[in-house]
Amino acid sequence: MFEEAELGRKVSREDYDRELPALRAGLLEAQRGLRAMGAPAIVLFSGADGAGKSETVQRLYEWLDPRGLETTAFGPPSDEERERPPYWRFWRTLPAAGRIGMFLGSWYTDPVLLRAYGKLNRAELGRGLQRISFFEQMLVDGGVLLLKFWLHLSRKGQRKRLNNLEKSPDTAWRVGSLEWKHYRLYPRFIRASEHVLQSTDTGRAPWYVVEAEDERYRELMVGRILLEAMRRRVAGERAAVTSGNATNPPPDPPAVPGARVTVLDHVDLTRALPDKEYRKRLLRAQARVNRLVRAAAEKKVSAVVVFEGWDAAGKGGAIRRLTAAMDPRLYRVIPVAAPTDEEKAQHYLWRFWRHLPRAGRVTVYDRSWYGRVLVERVEGFASEAEWRRAYLEINDFEQQLAEHGVVVTKFWLHVSSEEQLRRFEERQSTEYKRHKITDEDWRNREKWGAYHQAVNEMVVRTSTRPAPWTLVAGDDKRLARIQVLETFARRLEKAL
Amino acid sequence: MFEEAELGRKVSREDYDRELPALRAGLLEAQRGLRAMGAPAIVLFSGADGAGKSETVQRLYEWLDPRGLETTAFGPPSDEERERPPYWRFWRTLPAAGRIGMFLGSWYTDPVLLRAYGKLNRAELGRGLQRISFFEQMLVDGGVLLLKFWLHLSRKGQRKRLNNLEKSPDTAWRVGSLEWKHYRLYPRFIRASEHVLQSTDTGRAPWYVVEAEDERYRELMVGRILLEAMRRRVAGERAAVTSGNATNPPPDPPAVPGARVTVLDHVDLTRALPDKEYRKRLLRAQARVNRLVRAAAEKKVSAVVVFEGWDAAGKGGAIRRLTAAMDPRLYRVIPVAAPTDEEKAQHYLWRFWRHLPRAGRVTVYDRSWYGRVLVERVEGFASEAEWRRAYLEINDFEQQLAEHGVVVTKFWLHVSSEEQLRRFEERQSTEYKRHKITDEDWRNREKWGAYHQAVNEMVVRTSTRPAPWTLVAGDDKRLARIQVLETFARRLEKAL
Repeated sequence: MFEEAELGRKVSREDYDRELPALRAGLLEAQRGLRAMGAPAIVLFSGADGAGKSETVQRLYEWLDPRGLETTAFGPPSDEERERPPYWRFWRTLPAAGRIGMFLGSWYTDPVLLRAYGKLNRAELGRGLQRISFFEQMLVDGGVLLLKFWLHLSRKGQRKRLNNLEKSPDTAWRVGSLEWKHYRLYPRFIRASEHVLQSTDTGRAPWYVVEAEDERYRELMVGRILLEAMRRRVAGERAAVTSGNATNPPPDPPAVPGARVTVLDHVDLTRALPDKEYRKRLLRAQARVNRLVRAAAEKKVSAVVVFEGWDAAGKGGAIRRLTAAMDPRLYRVIPVAAPTDEEKAQHYLWRFWRHLPRAGRVTVYDRSWYGRVLVERVEGFASEAEWRRAYLEINDFEQQLAEHGVVVTKFWLHVSSEEQLRRFEERQSTEYKRHKITDEDWRNREKWGAYHQAVNEMVVRTSTRPAPWTLVAGDDKRLARIQVLETFARRLEKAL
Repeated sequence: MFEEAELGRKVSREDYDRELPALRAGLLEAQRGLRAMGAPAIVLFSGADGAGKSETVQRLYEWLDPRGLETTAFGPPSDEERERPPYWRFWRTLPAAGRIGMFLGSWYTDPVLLRAYGKLNRAELGRGLQRISFFEQMLVDGGVLLLKFWLHLSRKGQRKRLNNLEKSPDTAWRVGSLEWKHYRLYPRFIRASEHVLQSTDTGRAPWYVVEAEDERYRELMVGRILLEAMRRRVAGERAAVTSGNATNPPPDPPAVPGARVTVLDHVDLTRALPDKEYRKRLLRAQARVNRLVRAAAEKKVSAVVVFEGWDAAGKGGAIRRLTAAMDPRLYRVIPVAAPTDEEKAQHYLWRFWRHLPRAGRVTVYDRSWYGRVLVERVEGFASEAEWRRAYLEINDFEQQLAEHGVVVTKFWLHVSSEEQLRRFEERQSTEYKRHKITDEDWRNREKWGAYHQAVNEMVVRTSTRPAPWTLVAGDDKRLARIQVLETFARRLEKAL
């Protein structure tokens, strides 16, 4: 889920200065509104060392009325605190009605760190997370506006930032051996954090992951998110959606180009593969897949492959190249079209559960459960509460597959809008391809923007460690097919 | 939480026959309504061996239209099932829209049994419960009406039932070595079950614990609960309360005397203690408390003592006898009256958290957080959603105390309505006692019935293994004081 926060978003000094006055005025007004309502707010900051947590809090002290603010930084517990149950220290620092408490460190600090240090097993962590969920639900039920920020730095970004701090004599004191130790543990720290965030990202207490590399972008985003949340509360919205499990959308980033980069924008569609090299690599990859699938059957390791993508992105061709490499007894392709009567009478995930492969087999889903957050979202077949909730439901489903040892590989076949148009026109004008293009395809194309947003959010919210998305550069079909085969082979190989 | 289901409730044959026709007609109509809506229902039965789970299902087949029913009993998983993630077997048996699935055994079977066998540690169990909660929430979000029944037998009741089954050649096959093994494990099985039920008793998927000893009572209660839940759903209520954490009340038991016994009815108020024996035991108990509190201080074991009770039940006197036994440096009494301004600006539990004792100390709460589910409930100071939610919030709070090693002792000082009246009148007519009686006391007395119900539900829902309620027979003050002192001493002694 952190890929989304490593896109290099930036806000220039001029854009920042232009955005600021309205933001500050809005924040002050919303803060007054919150105080008048007597609603307490908790704004919690987490993230890697050096991501600018305390700088951001300082900025908020400039922007808001500091008389209504208080900040708590949780270091090691005092002896007073150690003598009481662990949550006593959080209870004693809760902000009173109408006040805003900024928390640097929180009930998340210990679980994440202990997990990163390897001192907490998965089950113990799960139990801690249950306690957190319950605690947060109780706060929210009690009227607290609870916002959780994760300020994200890439590993490279963290090193750069720590080096910069060390260089200046004014800030060198902030970097010690602990900070460098955490830097070395970065991958474990991120893995633990990802799990923790995904397990506690509820509609009532959502996480906001903010790219922290560029400080102007970071500050504006935190300010905007805080502003929108306070405004919603003042306007009387207790929780944005009814279900406790739905995921709240963050507000849009500032409307400046550098701040509006998405994951899909980072797919390099310009690369291509010469035909000769394609043939060579295709044969090699297919042989490799064939060998690995047989080995997996032997070892009773199953696999699930999901294909999603734009219309005419080359899904069919890629699937054929993949299945051509496998023994037909070992795989099944499930084409996902409109549900049958029997499927309609069940939960939307039921039709996918029923086709899960037996031990050692492969199920290829040609479109999948992701329809819920793509076509059903865009076409309005699912309500907002339903598709927002689906991110967690899907993550849980895939988590169950992974826990059972099923290898999950997910492909999004990406093409540029121009390439799609070219293919549509080619289909229209080629006799034997005409059946592949329908009015619906043209209608979907008109909603490119809405789909683009849905795809982007899908990838961000459901690319998990056990079931990551692979974004396939599809403008060149040959390259796409090779990428699919090689990715699947790599995932399978790793699991064997 | 199972004490409530060991009260010896009974329904006579005549009462049963009188109740039945309306119940059956109602069930059929509600089933038709559910089918017309296209809502699936899952009715899940758990409980000790011999509690009559399959008999109850058979009865429901008589009462409902069997064409809309299906039953699944989960034995050991098949090889087909073992090759998929564990929940696959549950997904494949979910009832379709408009149908009712009866589950004998379920996703609860494994966690409870493995825990009772000692094959699952607490954290692993916690993780399994998290999965269950998520799964059930998903079902309910997807429109399933989910009812969970726990048919309860006391250990004695179970032995009797197994013996009876064994005696008859027609049913002897139902009792084998496994059933007797489970009988031997009864205390561990109950302990595990209690924890599991309390962790999964949500407003959206509530547990209904039904006393199963008397089969007519059991059947009528299950029928009534099912009927009310189906009716509510047909009437358009998706979830009875908005918060996912509130607890649904079961419908009233049949209006026949034998079925309406409560926990409070079981307190024997007739016993009394002669003055001489009282003096002797008082001195002995106080000396014992003194010694134990000093030992606890030494060992850094803290204690929390909660006093609740009817007006004029003798709380003050009991507290004085208790505190007289302790070194004043080691305890604090927190009298809980109207909250201060500072307390009002916080969550209702905040004022209790702040007074938690340091290591080795005792806090005595003279009235407590239970005000939320007593006076605030009855007087309407808290909304129904708020006080229903409070049972879980309070259990979680006390669980945190227990996990930290704090000894929690809770007293409900019970008196009969007649004895209360006598004491009120005595206070009124005795000069130096008149300040102790106010108009409010008389007003509260008029609400005896509502309070009785609230107290009963409080005891049932919050008497947990780490923090059980002690119901003190208060008609004789001397006996009450001794019971308080000796109970506290026993709890402390056990923890040292």
